[in-house]
Amino acid sequence: MNSRLSAIEETLLMGPGPSCVAPEVYEALSTVTIGHMDPRFIGVMDHLKEYLQTLLNTRNRLTIPMSGTGSAGMETCFVNLVEPGDSVLVLINGVFGMRMKDVASRLGASVDTLEFEWGSPVSVADVEKKLAGAHYKIVAVVHAETSTGVRNPVAEIGALLRGSGSLYLVDTVTSLGGIPVEMDAWGIDALYGGTQKCLSCPPGLAPVSFSDRALEALKARTRKVPNWYLDLTMITQYWEGSKRVYHHTAPVNMIYALYRALALIIDEGLENVYQRHATCHKKLVSGLECMGLSMLVAPPYRLPMLNAVRIPDGVDDERVRSALLNEHKIEIGAGLGPLAAKVWRIGLMGHTARERNVERVLAALNTVLQP
Amino acid sequence: MNSRLSAIEETLLMGPGPSCVAPEVYEALSTVTIGHMDPRFIGVMDHLKEYLQTLLNTRNRLTIPMSGTGSAGMETCFVNLVEPGDSVLVLINGVFGMRMKDVASRLGASVDTLEFEWGSPVSVADVEKKLAGAHYKIVAVVHAETSTGVRNPVAEIGALLRGSGSLYLVDTVTSLGGIPVEMDAWGIDALYGGTQKCLSCPPGLAPVSFSDRALEALKARTRKVPNWYLDLTMITQYWEGSKRVYHHTAPVNMIYALYRALALIIDEGLENVYQRHATCHKKLVSGLECMGLSMLVAPPYRLPMLNAVRIPDGVDDERVRSALLNEHKIEIGAGLGPLAAKVWRIGLMGHTARERNVERVLAALNTVLQP
Repeated sequence: MNSRLSAIEETLLMGPGPSCVAPEVYEALSTVTIGHMDPRFIGVMDHLKEYLQTLLNTRNRLTIPMSGTGSAGMETCFVNLVEPGDSVLVLINGVFGMRMKDVASRLGASVDTLEFEWGSPVSVADVEKKLAGAHYKIVAVVHAETSTGVRNPVAEIGALLRGSGSLYLVDTVTSLGGIPVEMDAWGIDALYGGTQKCLSCPPGLAPVSFSDRALEALKARTRKVPNWYLDLTMITQYWEGSKRVYHHTAPVNMIYALYRALALIIDEGLENVYQRHATCHKKLVSGLECMGLSMLVAPPYRLPMLNAVRIPDGVDDERVRSALLNEHKIEIGAGLGPLAAKVWRIGLMGHTARERNVERVLAALNTVLQP
Repeated sequence: MNSRLSAIEETLLMGPGPSCVAPEVYEALSTVTIGHMDPRFIGVMDHLKEYLQTLLNTRNRLTIPMSGTGSAGMETCFVNLVEPGDSVLVLINGVFGMRMKDVASRLGASVDTLEFEWGSPVSVADVEKKLAGAHYKIVAVVHAETSTGVRNPVAEIGALLRGSGSLYLVDTVTSLGGIPVEMDAWGIDALYGGTQKCLSCPPGLAPVSFSDRALEALKARTRKVPNWYLDLTMITQYWEGSKRVYHHTAPVNMIYALYRALALIIDEGLENVYQRHATCHKKLVSGLECMGLSMLVAPPYRLPMLNAVRIPDGVDDERVRSALLNEHKIEIGAGLGPLAAKVWRIGLMGHTARERNVERVLAALNTVLQP
């Protein structure tokens, strides 16, 4: 019966997520399940919120993990803030910007977009021009575009929006825990992340935070949030206050795991964690370039945790990824959309971001790419 | 840092869920994480679908776990089938019927209801009368009403609906794995469950199944599903076919755990599992009655896995539940809504449903209720 699970072996996860999970987090994950209204579980929830506030550099009270994966975080931010006809500007330079447009459109928003080449960052000057011509209820951007490895200028766009009355919505799924995220200083109003990237917790939860301005917009809605499961007006009654109100049964064990994963990051120190990602990234890029490979993204815009490498002419994408997985037990990611078969995506996320892992993937790639 | 988790001790979970988790399932939960596109993980997914089909007695190809808790399953069934203005009849005799009404209303459905006393079952005769007067696109009911402990006549309502053209939507969150669910034989078109009740897997996933008729309704929609995260037209491309298309990152470790939990049930044999629930239920009721306590629900409509017991006059609800939790390490559930402080809900779900656990809760209640 159990054969399918016993066939699963430790794999070095260097794709776009999930990343490798620390032993302490597996241990937390399999801590005995207790009730979702148990005072000891409420204690874990309260601590977890504080850890998230520390990681996001925010004082927002509404800072909680949603009971779904990162994409449920995206859905949460839009569905709580958008009412039919609301104007939304989405800045797009990859798959996850495209996804934002789709999510907002389905909710009846009037979506405008500003698109940039995949592999290039959002241009702040272009955004400034666009904002001069129109007002939007929401302006949305992806911090770390997982499909290309580009870091978007989230702080600079936030500065443009200050005082504009627009709500600033940012995807930090891949950035969170790998590069600094300054929610309050950058003026972000609604933010979501995922657990399976630089937080190195298995996939299944989506940290979300709302500023007071976002909460006011939520309270000012003329109709109920059209999604019972993700309605923050109800969910906050379970996550806050002296008397907790049952909404849905919290994913207890996943919350244990996220709690422990965040504790590991905070114990190591945020600066040390970011430095570890940066060091591994430099070592990886330098190793790849020594092998004659080239990066998709120009140096100033590169993410440390997601490295898009051009596949050399004549090299079979799938053969290389299969050989890495089957012969070397290393997973790297394929390209998405227009970058399919054009790039590999090598992740250096969270627990995976160790120099020995960089050495291992470079050696394996070198072997597999031998003619 | 880890103090909050180390304070968590094994607790006998006899509330309305989560239930106790078997050691094999904790072990599966902490199996090493691999990628969501890894062929070995796809193998686990394929097996898990077959297990669910066996448990549900269905041949529906679209039988998968959604990446959220049971309430996300409810949201999934409604959001994929309802378009604004669609007529929906919800049969209500507890919290979860009320929740269905709320979910469907938020999606713009024209919701009609038929309400019954909490603690009594849905009346088939009343439903028949109602259906004679109107046609509904969807008729929805809860199989096992977790808030009251009532078993609703799902097979009989299904027989009424046969050939009517209505889609039959059933909540099996609490019934699944504790009493038989015959999806195909009963004519159910859309069904959802949860993992943390009689499947005895930690909370976090929601099994969902759609019949061919439900799929046709999904394909006939005039507009996109207004929920990207739960859109089955996209999610099935990840769960089916020879070439899997990434939608969102599957909650890998939770899926391992559900796979293992289902394997345990199928290994034990469905009939044996249902018999175990029935035996424990009888023993519990007889023990409670010997102590002078009485049940909320009349015998023919009682669920084995959720036992609503009237709180005797003059007994302090919270004192008893706290004493059970703190002094005896047993969790039982409080009443909800109009039944708050009027009943306790004693769960006998999945791995929890063992005679020794029944003896333990009876002995503990006896001690705590001593004047």
